[in-house]
Amino acid sequence: MHLEAVYHRIKQNWSYAYDHKTLHIRIRTKKEDITKVDLYCGDKYGWENTHQVISMEKWASDGLFDYWEAAVQPAYRRLVYYFALHNESKTAYMLEKGFFDHPPEVIYEGLFDFPFLNPADVISPPAWVKDAVFYQIFPERFANGDPSNDPEDVLPWGGTPSPDNFFGGDLQGVIDHLDYLTELGINAIYFTPVFEATKNHKYDTKDYLKVDPHFGTNETLKQLVDACHTKGIRVMLDAVFNHCGHTFPPFVDVLHNGKASPYADWFHVREWPLSAAEDGLTYDTFAFEPIMPKLNTENPEVKDYLLGVAKYWIEEVGIDGWRLDVANEVDHQFWREFRRTVKAIKPETYILGEIMHDAMVWLQGDQFDAVMNYPFTNILLSFFARRQTRAEEFANAIHKQLASYPKQVNEVAFNLLGSHDTVRLLTLCEGKVERMKLASLFQLTFLGTPCIYYGDEIGLDGEYDPYNRRCMEWDEAKQDQDLLSFFKGMIQLRNSHAALRTGGLKFLQDQHNDYVLAYERRDAQDRFVIVMNNSERAVTSQTVVSGSCWHNIVTGQSVRADKGQLNAELPAYGYMILQATQA
Amino acid sequence: MHLEAVYHRIKQNWSYAYDHKTLHIRIRTKKEDITKVDLYCGDKYGWENTHQVISMEKWASDGLFDYWEAAVQPAYRRLVYYFALHNESKTAYMLEKGFFDHPPEVIYEGLFDFPFLNPADVISPPAWVKDAVFYQIFPERFANGDPSNDPEDVLPWGGTPSPDNFFGGDLQGVIDHLDYLTELGINAIYFTPVFEATKNHKYDTKDYLKVDPHFGTNETLKQLVDACHTKGIRVMLDAVFNHCGHTFPPFVDVLHNGKASPYADWFHVREWPLSAAEDGLTYDTFAFEPIMPKLNTENPEVKDYLLGVAKYWIEEVGIDGWRLDVANEVDHQFWREFRRTVKAIKPETYILGEIMHDAMVWLQGDQFDAVMNYPFTNILLSFFARRQTRAEEFANAIHKQLASYPKQVNEVAFNLLGSHDTVRLLTLCEGKVERMKLASLFQLTFLGTPCIYYGDEIGLDGEYDPYNRRCMEWDEAKQDQDLLSFFKGMIQLRNSHAALRTGGLKFLQDQHNDYVLAYERRDAQDRFVIVMNNSERAVTSQTVVSGSCWHNIVTGQSVRADKGQLNAELPAYGYMILQATQA
Repeated sequence: MHLEAVYHRIKQNWSYAYDHKTLHIRIRTKKEDITKVDLYCGDKYGWENTHQVISMEKWASDGLFDYWEAAVQPAYRRLVYYFALHNESKTAYMLEKGFFDHPPEVIYEGLFDFPFLNPADVISPPAWVKDAVFYQIFPERFANGDPSNDPEDVLPWGGTPSPDNFFGGDLQGVIDHLDYLTELGINAIYFTPVFEATKNHKYDTKDYLKVDPHFGTNETLKQLVDACHTKGIRVMLDAVFNHCGHTFPPFVDVLHNGKASPYADWFHVREWPLSAAEDGLTYDTFAFEPIMPKLNTENPEVKDYLLGVAKYWIEEVGIDGWRLDVANEVDHQFWREFRRTVKAIKPETYILGEIMHDAMVWLQGDQFDAVMNYPFTNILLSFFARRQTRAEEFANAIHKQLASYPKQVNEVAFNLLGSHDTVRLLTLCEGKVERMKLASLFQLTFLGTPCIYYGDEIGLDGEYDPYNRRCMEWDEAKQDQDLLSFFKGMIQLRNSHAALRTGGLKFLQDQHNDYVLAYERRDAQDRFVIVMNNSERAVTSQTVVSGSCWHNIVTGQSVRADKGQLNAELPAYGYMILQATQA
Repeated sequence: MHLEAVYHRIKQNWSYAYDHKTLHIRIRTKKEDITKVDLYCGDKYGWENTHQVISMEKWASDGLFDYWEAAVQPAYRRLVYYFALHNESKTAYMLEKGFFDHPPEVIYEGLFDFPFLNPADVISPPAWVKDAVFYQIFPERFANGDPSNDPEDVLPWGGTPSPDNFFGGDLQGVIDHLDYLTELGINAIYFTPVFEATKNHKYDTKDYLKVDPHFGTNETLKQLVDACHTKGIRVMLDAVFNHCGHTFPPFVDVLHNGKASPYADWFHVREWPLSAAEDGLTYDTFAFEPIMPKLNTENPEVKDYLLGVAKYWIEEVGIDGWRLDVANEVDHQFWREFRRTVKAIKPETYILGEIMHDAMVWLQGDQFDAVMNYPFTNILLSFFARRQTRAEEFANAIHKQLASYPKQVNEVAFNLLGSHDTVRLLTLCEGKVERMKLASLFQLTFLGTPCIYYGDEIGLDGEYDPYNRRCMEWDEAKQDQDLLSFFKGMIQLRNSHAALRTGGLKFLQDQHNDYVLAYERRDAQDRFVIVMNNSERAVTSQTVVSGSCWHNIVTGQSVRADKGQLNAELPAYGYMILQATQA
């Protein structure tokens, strides 16, 4: 028994309240080392009358570990517990104080303790988010609805993007195309920044309280949000609070007045005077970008200012979410105050952090509801786009990712396959639409909140910035209509079946095909099996399933499993989506 | 190579800011499996110009694992990193995204990321705490300084304690004996509750803003705190905020008016009417104690009330710390507000949580400065009192404990060997003063904040509550004067040498004696080696050390190590404290 591989620690993803009554307890063991795990648990002040033994479920596995889980509803909201790990040859008991070969004699010392399930501490993302499908819009490149607000040096729509050029996209353009978005089926939009700034990406904010004049006015934004709400679409804006732009008036004041400026402490100045000389910046910035000075979010005035901004756009315009740019470089204390401020005025506001790494410490209920799930992106790209992994490795990586967060965090993870910061999905798939479809099919039938980067759905391609920020193609003849139909169909399917959003996930085995990915999504109402052939050769997939009667919702055909195995001919990059016709 | 044993995750005890410039990065590997660990690290936006390789130090080991650590001062306060794990046969690279047999090709994806060292997030306990020696006073049993405020049914001092009897101890009694405490050498007092309540322990608060009339008045408390401060003694009070007493006026109101009471939501009522019937309470309490109703700390009025109490005693009386009773059953959000409130008015206030288990989630900088270190207590009692472990197991357990928290948390851990909630140390040591001395010697020469439970120093014994709450013995003839001298000497030694408080700790080997515990404490000024024989047989200790010339500060003799080994005759339960006479 490999005790050194066993891991459990209270809170985080290992023991947490899933709702106001239920605790989830998880433990990790070495892969295939342990055959059974029992959870011994009870109330610490009344063990005799409350204790029980729960057989834990092996709910996930990756390349190194098995993950076990149990759900418990302690009568008095308190739980002490220990684990019994069994294999063929022995039983080991894991307590907080260590491993033993016998059960504990006393329960008041050395057990694990989930001390009290307080509602205030339950991680509770807004309910709507787990049913949302997001669409990301880079406003300068989506649609030009009002030529009167174009920048002076605007270029004809559809030209080659550069870091500094403009094509006149604006908020009116979005309003004009809301029907397109409704037909696509999305129900939430994430806008990259819309406040006044100098660059086309607007991440160098000049005025946090004013819509960029080239995008429209504050009133246009209000109209856009109202129009979205009328159509059942929620709106999330980008909060660039880690840094401002070099034209932000407080920074301009410091540039002019140096140490004597009343804003001198709004920034992180290493050395006076401010200098952005080649041989080193004298102030902290985003990355090493002189035009993006880092804001001192520990300064109470800066805090008040930015929290005022966060409130303003919720109260004045009615936005439904804030996406937090470079969220992990801002102090945790600031984000705790941000959450309190925002949730106090609109509890249903979605708070989404841009963090590309493991983000558990920001997702403990006191800071963010979710993060941009780039680890998910990388897992999908490795399999579908770069084709570096096999189906088993893919499933391992997904399981590892799921095991690293509480369930309700996974349910609202912002699952993207690309953004203004990455190479476009189609380009990563070497222009092969079939491969892009498989990746999107997985994204849209997986738990979490999928987000489609504008234009991916009609076949926009593009290398890294600036080419991933091309103008949206509105000429239907130039749109990939087959791809667009695929997206509409998949989004509709997702929107129609909760099983595809919040149902259980189980990967299914196909021992004969390394590149056949098969998985089941199921809830009390529905059961789906999705099988895809992520290879350039036709295969006969041989998927192990437990039900026998299925309906292929793509072809309309009936499909029967034979002795617990679904056999199907799948062409290169082919797939099938099966819905169970029996319970 | 046992990769499944390797553990690292960002933040908590694995990667944290030790101060405003320095990050500590730690990793765990299977014991004796890895010979060398290198940390590859740099700035994520400028890897080329900043990256470095740091050989990590194997700083601790327990029964299963080795723990490695490196300190880094990143120029731009940002650090991405990965680990190279070496043994004789291979090298493995550990990234956030997994293990690889080759180093990463790109640094912008899948590495570990400590995104930014923000001062607001640095865990920063008050500086004075790591130099403090606490003394815990249970006021009803320490000294009766003012018979005029005795309870009606007061018993003669020194009688047998029961759960319900009173002996008249009060705050004037403490004032009267401050010289005794000064001579003992302690410089901080932790008082169990002093606010008005019905029981002798005062954990069933009636009035949070009033000193219990049997203990004195608010003015007496002010005099006591002032007198302590004059003598350089800090004062910590007990905040019983998880629950109140059944005589607390808001609870009385709810008892009378039920649902209609304006205080109905101040408690956790499961079912109306309130009932404390045998077959089940209808409201939440501490444990299953009807006279201690749990407070609803999520109710804004309750929050305001309790935070007002926390402020009041700091502002009105000048206390230096709050010990938080049953801290882990109160919601984290409340404690975050508590910290903000308390630190805003007096940043040097020590916030100490009563948590008997692993408390990492409360010690991330946003809630407590420290917790009552009962895991430490249990490790010491197992070795010194119950004698269930050998020296090697003791060292393993201490290392495991140190590895589970950031360094600055360990420096202010509240290290107690007993309290009003445990059997007295002398009783656990079966009345053997020699064994009690060894335990206390370790406590007083270890990092963290030692606390002595009143009377332990003069030989009070006592089984579990109520016998651990006997009256303090003031008759010098009945005090164990030898033990008292020992405590005075050890406290003075600790107070005189920072090495014993904050110096490095290293356990030293004695391969010939399972029960000889030897360790070194050292800083730039001083170096001590302490050797103790935790057995009832005389032994010749054979301790491996690196220095050769030593001074035995107990006997005054010179001691020389022979070929890196200190040989010494130690009687049963004997010890020696050696100070290096050469650098």
